[in-house]
Amino acid sequence: MPSEPVRFYFDFLSPYAYIAWTQIHPLAERYGRDIDAVPILFAALLGTHGTKGPAEIPAKRLYVFKDVMRTARVLGLPLSPPPAHPFNPLLALRVASSDLDRPARRRLIDGLYRATWGGGPGVNDPAVVARIADEAGLDGAALVAGAERDEIKARVKAQTDEALALGAFGIPSILVDGELFWGYDSFGHVERRLAGRDPLDDLDLKRWKDLPASARRRV
Amino acid sequence: MPSEPVRFYFDFLSPYAYIAWTQIHPLAERYGRDIDAVPILFAALLGTHGTKGPAEIPAKRLYVFKDVMRTARVLGLPLSPPPAHPFNPLLALRVASSDLDRPARRRLIDGLYRATWGGGPGVNDPAVVARIADEAGLDGAALVAGAERDEIKARVKAQTDEALALGAFGIPSILVDGELFWGYDSFGHVERRLAGRDPLDDLDLKRWKDLPASARRRV
Repeated sequence: MPSEPVRFYFDFLSPYAYIAWTQIHPLAERYGRDIDAVPILFAALLGTHGTKGPAEIPAKRLYVFKDVMRTARVLGLPLSPPPAHPFNPLLALRVASSDLDRPARRRLIDGLYRATWGGGPGVNDPAVVARIADEAGLDGAALVAGAERDEIKARVKAQTDEALALGAFGIPSILVDGELFWGYDSFGHVERRLAGRDPLDDLDLKRWKDLPASARRRV
Repeated sequence: MPSEPVRFYFDFLSPYAYIAWTQIHPLAERYGRDIDAVPILFAALLGTHGTKGPAEIPAKRLYVFKDVMRTARVLGLPLSPPPAHPFNPLLALRVASSDLDRPARRRLIDGLYRATWGGGPGVNDPAVVARIADEAGLDGAALVAGAERDEIKARVKAQTDEALALGAFGIPSILVDGELFWGYDSFGHVERRLAGRDPLDDLDLKRWKDLPASARRRV
């Protein structure tokens, strides 16, 4: 029985997801795995968990920018902020959720990420998004028009709900054989899971889950 | 001129800080650096930034436990949750902020971390904390009594304010030559900074700092 594809949950808002997107393919390929790219709305994760995104905490926003720039430099990856951030990612998420085969979706997401974090013009303008899709060998005008269909809007919502049901709280989240991992920093753990060497012991987890609290912050 | 010590800001609440504490010493020693251990109150960071700690988001709490257990296994480090979590860390933070030389403070923190995350009885009970200090070759009864002094309480607050002024939002935070790093996941960047190979370019940062937003979540 062939191994299940790795599911990569992402939003174009996150530079960590951009970095991870460029690195997950060679990693998965080393273990003979396909990637299913799953666009989701990061803001819905924050809303559901009642927490703030890194860009909403000024000290963390600056740190994240430094951290991703350092990581990109180490990887030799182009990284430059989009014209504005945060921005509304819905059009890009919907276009990337169109009915496409796996290689076409990958080319499209590659182009959308280059436009966002690779020094491009951002992904807010429908004409720009259509051109990116054209350059990926697709029918950009048709994809941008199709992104407004209720079916595609509902699909992004369903994908986001799927990630939430798996326990996702951050971007990117990566599902490998039933375990969800968070962030590019988790790629060591992702690789061990792909290699069948995940050191996690289920017996330990029961103790963590049942752990009582003896103090809580007043919030 | 000798290089400045690395400043390691931590709270006993964080298993990531425990893991980082065990790894920062061999790393700093490779670059001939001392470590100044600086106990701070994580809850004050969360309060200042108006955000939630990982343990306050149920999905993230479980993920963090899995993530630290995986990392500890890879490092061959004992890791087991304390009897309760979250717990009130103030006594341990204050005792660890006593007037001590660097080696004594390190032995004391080693013992307090073993009691917290290394399978021990936790650090809530003053008698347990005193015994840990005794085992570190110190006068446990005197340290526990001294931890109630206003001067020591003010010291923990001043240390926390120092971390906040540097931009700290999480635990552990590590100051290396004027740059603050967050978390064990940043140790690759910490090492490059220690080695004088931090790839960050100040020119890039100005663009990030001035970046406008074109969308904001309604919260």
